[in-house]
Amino acid sequence: MIINKRIPLYYPFKMIIVDILIISAFATVIHLISSNFIDFKLPISFSAFFGTSISLILSFKLSQSYDRWWEARKIWGAIVNDSRSLVMQLKTFIQPDNEAGKIILNKMAYRQISWCYALGQNLRKQEVMKYSKEFISEEEFILVNNKSNIPVMLLDLHYDDLKKMRKTELISEFHEIQIESTMQRLCTSMGRAERIKNTFFPKTYRLTLRLFIYLFLILLSLSMSNSLSEFHDFIHIPLLIAIAIPFFLLEKIAYQIQDPFENQPTDTAVTSIARTIEIT
Amino acid sequence: MIINKRIPLYYPFKMIIVDILIISAFATVIHLISSNFIDFKLPISFSAFFGTSISLILSFKLSQSYDRWWEARKIWGAIVNDSRSLVMQLKTFIQPDNEAGKIILNKMAYRQISWCYALGQNLRKQEVMKYSKEFISEEEFILVNNKSNIPVMLLDLHYDDLKKMRKTELISEFHEIQIESTMQRLCTSMGRAERIKNTFFPKTYRLTLRLFIYLFLILLSLSMSNSLSEFHDFIHIPLLIAIAIPFFLLEKIAYQIQDPFENQPTDTAVTSIARTIEIT
Amino acid sequence: MIINKRIPLYYPFKMIIVDILIISAFATVIHLISSNFIDFKLPISFSAFFGTSISLILSFKLSQSYDRWWEARKIWGAIVNDSRSLVMQLKTFIQPDNEAGKIILNKMAYRQISWCYALGQNLRKQEVMKYSKEFISEEEFILVNNKSNIPVMLLDLHYDDLKKMRKTELISEFHEIQIESTMQRLCTSMGRAERIKNTFFPKTYRLTLRLFIYLFLILLSLSMSNSLSEFHDFIHIPLLIAIAIPFFLLEKIAYQIQDPFENQPTDTAVTSIARTIEIT
Amino acid sequence: MIINKRIPLYYPFKMIIVDILIISAFATVIHLISSNFIDFKLPISFSAFFGTSISLILSFKLSQSYDRWWEARKIWGAIVNDSRSLVMQLKTFIQPDNEAGKIILNKMAYRQISWCYALGQNLRKQEVMKYSKEFISEEEFILVNNKSNIPVMLLDLHYDDLKKMRKTELISEFHEIQIESTMQRLCTSMGRAERIKNTFFPKTYRLTLRLFIYLFLILLSLSMSNSLSEFHDFIHIPLLIAIAIPFFLLEKIAYQIQDPFENQPTDTAVTSIARTIEIT
Amino acid sequence: MIINKRIPLYYPFKMIIVDILIISAFATVIHLISSNFIDFKLPISFSAFFGTSISLILSFKLSQSYDRWWEARKIWGAIVNDSRSLVMQLKTFIQPDNEAGKIILNKMAYRQISWCYALGQNLRKQEVMKYSKEFISEEEFILVNNKSNIPVMLLDLHYDDLKKMRKTELISEFHEIQIESTMQRLCTSMGRAERIKNTFFPKTYRLTLRLFIYLFLILLSLSMSNSLSEFHDFIHIPLLIAIAIPFFLLEKIAYQIQDPFENQPTDTAVTSIARTIEIT
Repeated sequence: MIINKRIPLYYPFKMIIVDILIISAFATVIHLISSNFIDFKLPISFSAFFGTSISLILSFKLSQSYDRWWEARKIWGAIVNDSRSLVMQLKTFIQPDNEAGKIILNKMAYRQISWCYALGQNLRKQEVMKYSKEFISEEEFILVNNKSNIPVMLLDLHYDDLKKMRKTELISEFHEIQIESTMQRLCTSMGRAERIKNTFFPKTYRLTLRLFIYLFLILLSLSMSNSLSEFHDFIHIPLLIAIAIPFFLLEKIAYQIQDPFENQPTDTAVTSIARTIEIT
Repeated sequence: MIINKRIPLYYPFKMIIVDILIISAFATVIHLISSNFIDFKLPISFSAFFGTSISLILSFKLSQSYDRWWEARKIWGAIVNDSRSLVMQLKTFIQPDNEAGKIILNKMAYRQISWCYALGQNLRKQEVMKYSKEFISEEEFILVNNKSNIPVMLLDLHYDDLKKMRKTELISEFHEIQIESTMQRLCTSMGRAERIKNTFFPKTYRLTLRLFIYLFLILLSLSMSNSLSEFHDFIHIPLLIAIAIPFFLLEKIAYQIQDPFENQPTDTAVTSIARTIEIT
Repeated sequence: MIINKRIPLYYPFKMIIVDILIISAFATVIHLISSNFIDFKLPISFSAFFGTSISLILSFKLSQSYDRWWEARKIWGAIVNDSRSLVMQLKTFIQPDNEAGKIILNKMAYRQISWCYALGQNLRKQEVMKYSKEFISEEEFILVNNKSNIPVMLLDLHYDDLKKMRKTELISEFHEIQIESTMQRLCTSMGRAERIKNTFFPKTYRLTLRLFIYLFLILLSLSMSNSLSEFHDFIHIPLLIAIAIPFFLLEKIAYQIQDPFENQPTDTAVTSIARTIEIT
Repeated sequence: MIINKRIPLYYPFKMIIVDILIISAFATVIHLISSNFIDFKLPISFSAFFGTSISLILSFKLSQSYDRWWEARKIWGAIVNDSRSLVMQLKTFIQPDNEAGKIILNKMAYRQISWCYALGQNLRKQEVMKYSKEFISEEEFILVNNKSNIPVMLLDLHYDDLKKMRKTELISEFHEIQIESTMQRLCTSMGRAERIKNTFFPKTYRLTLRLFIYLFLILLSLSMSNSLSEFHDFIHIPLLIAIAIPFFLLEKIAYQIQDPFENQPTDTAVTSIARTIEIT
Repeated sequence: MIINKRIPLYYPFKMIIVDILIISAFATVIHLISSNFIDFKLPISFSAFFGTSISLILSFKLSQSYDRWWEARKIWGAIVNDSRSLVMQLKTFIQPDNEAGKIILNKMAYRQISWCYALGQNLRKQEVMKYSKEFISEEEFILVNNKSNIPVMLLDLHYDDLKKMRKTELISEFHEIQIESTMQRLCTSMGRAERIKNTFFPKTYRLTLRLFIYLFLILLSLSMSNSLSEFHDFIHIPLLIAIAIPFFLLEKIAYQIQDPFENQPTDTAVTSIARTIEIT
């Protein structure tokens, strides 16, 4: 629901305003030149085929960006699931009616929440321990804070507790392996989220795509004086802008969802999901 | 079979009637202006290339929506399978000729049915316990009802019973792990279904796509007065509508299958599948 | 090899003959009207862009149908593999030189063949026990016959035998778990095959696609009188039919491979594969 | 490296020479008719849109063929990996300083090489035991030779040895299960490779695609006399051939990589990879 | 971050300069011929449809190359994760307060770093032991150096240590299996990376694609003299170059990311990631 509501309608247009202004300015200049000095007489077929080519490349780009966004969404979903599983496994496997067991269960469950917040903040390159601090003891906070990769440190503490639980026979060897598997999956998901965050689509690609769109719009404005009758000059620039808008919008959407953990309205709602774990 | 039959033929047309009326009204106005006042003389190439671009973007959109729908279908299929597996595992692993075992097997099998109904209703944001109530005891109903996430609560009861079975040595430690794995998969599938339900395709995208289609139809109606001879004026509007219908239909289909758990005829038949588990 | 040979060359043309006749009749009428009464003079660009749009949508449709067909093929491949694995595991794990072990191994191996046939027939909605009967005892046949889902019943018998083998210590607990995993995979594959069989692509989609193709061919026949010179009237209808054929053929192929278990030449050769298990 | 070097530059052209000759002959006939008797005057738009349609269908076909080729490559990669893993597991798990263990390890490692060769040959429908014979004992060779599926027989011998190792306590029960899992994965990969080998893309599809390309080139040659000025008649046929070449080449590439185990230069280098296992 | 910054803006243009020069030279010759001797009068539709076809094929090519690049990125991500997991598992499973355990843990952790460097160098066909030497003992260095596949040798040493740990009861049998699974995954990832490195996209394909682009640009330059008015001759060549640039750029990007481990700026940053394991 959140994502559906948080994007104000003017938001996408704010993103492309600069591109639209540049292209309008350019179109005006071309229009003035072609009506007063030389008529470029570029046939409309040129720009039409170019538009089709761009749609194709744009469609491929959208597809890749979407896959990346969806993969990020899946990874975060797996983190939520495995966090739930971890707590459920601990509750089921720890010897019942055991005071020490209850204490360690509580400690690990809260540390898991802390880990989720820390990972979310870390992925968005924000203050990592902002929301995580209150869920771990002062002692552990001092231990992990200012480390280069805090989520890894928190998982490390989980591994320490697992070792302790096994040593004090709170859990059997099989249970240890089952819990270790869940923790390994959390570790894997963390690695995957970091991979998506740190892998950039070759920048040349985006530049080429934008170059392609600009070239298309310039060809289009050059060919307009040829194909549109002199009669309705006033229609040139609005028409060009109308055609430019969806292309720029699609390019921006593709660019935006490509970075699925960034602090923007289309984020995979990292924080909101993290909160649902608390309830379990 | 159900899906094939439940969509009445008028259904898709009911969905696009508003769009068709808007575009017809618009086309009539343009037609009146262009035949009586000014002739827009937009070359047909403009709208033709635009139509190709839209087909491309629409094709990408259809592809993503379909993938989403298919993923939802897979997840629900996995839930049906794992529900079957859970009951079969319990039947195989529980010590034979054991009264307590039979009782707990029955309780868990019925609770599994209850869970399937509850999850289906929860995904469609309808009264969660509507069909689930009759499969669990009064006692458990009071325990889970009005909780924020009832399916999670029901799984929690499964975990409690698993713990009890292990404690009373009804099942061995290995069997416990095997059953726990199945329950974990059910938990994972539930998380995945919720992820699909709660992840919205960026709304900007849909708006851009609709903007694109409208723009195309407007350009088309502007260019018709130019490319069609004066002779058959009467053909303009029907032709425009005929071209508009498939585009709007495809856009609607893409939008509709994007929300695979919604209460609409193309639903992944959540309820009907849930019923097949009862038979096993 | 089988699939390659079983489709006679006239087969695809038999499928599209009705569509071709309809469109030919229509084209003849249009041709007569346009040569004797009114000339529609629809510019060729209209139909050209429409043809491109249809190719795009058709290409997407083919892609989805192919994925579905390939997935069905993979599932059936997995069933063949896991059937092989099940027999090999039984042979390896059962205590050697044990008469009771040999008997149960034989019974389960033949029941597995029976299950493959039954599943194949069930997916094609044909007489389920036609080929399966001879591989199981009379007793078991009576037990499973006329049940709503016979393959599930047969797997259930497998689970019973597994329980018995464990109880009589023919296999160890670890072997039981390993065999149970294989049986679970068979159960999962069965569920997947049923999902593909029972999930229909929204019918609206196919109707829209066919509507699109007809609309295109009508536009094309309308524009032919305009773009082709009066001289070679005789070429109109053959040309239209020549263009119509590949579009209808592709649509048919997409539709046909979408239902991969149906009783048609392009079937995933369900029966032929089932036979290879017997040899092992 | 091998694949990159083994395709001589004339190779692709040799593949399409027949198609090119047919189309050249056809174009010459059309050219002679249209310059001396009747001018067909087909507008160029007809063939242009047809070309775009073909590109789309061709692009889909290429995509499917490539995926198939890549999947075959992955499967063979998995076979190489699991062969390595099997040998490493045997080395690690077998009781050290045990003569019987060393003998069985050697026997199984060489049999694994034999299996790789046999599978490769079997997939290419060539003499199965050509390279495999020298890696197994005479005794085993007699046992497996002339069997309908030799690789399955070899895996069966692996299973026998596994059983023997367990019986003589060379390995523990857990090790048995771990090794059995690796052998099961090999068995699965074998099944997958056979599935790809034996699943044919519906032949109708290829015929439709070729029909489409021919139709396009005929339309193109018909429209050339219309759109190219009388002046440069000599350009017609070379131009048609130049346009025909990439279409035929792409169709051939798609067809060729579709059968990834065939004995052709673009093979997944089955034999060369099989040799690398020997080194380990 | 690194990838985003390391590509200087002139880099992509340096790649396509040769192609651009060739096409410019060619265009100049055509221009001179067509303005002074014969006018080719090729209609613009020819080149326009060709441009669309190329965009399609290019779009497919980009899609495949990107998938390959992303798969390589995923594999390397899995290697980083499993390296982390291996060290964490060793720390958790080895008997606490055990001197021998600490020594072996240290040895294996450093060997893992060594392995990562060696694999990275090996994939890029550079001096394998350049960075790996300092993390293993002199003794082990002599053992592995100059072997044909050093990373395999290093994993082999891991397996030896695992065997030793089990023999001296530093870890239990279950822990051995769990660690062996992680090492098997590392082995699998290594195999996958090697597969991507050694599998070449059929070279014919790239040649066909380039042939296609050149043919398109030649057709375009031939048709320019026809469709552009005599007035602005000076615009021909710059326009052709402007159109050529994005096509060549996209082709180069597709080619470049196809080889994801090569020593080029868009590499999956093999070395930089390898370094992050050291910190853990």
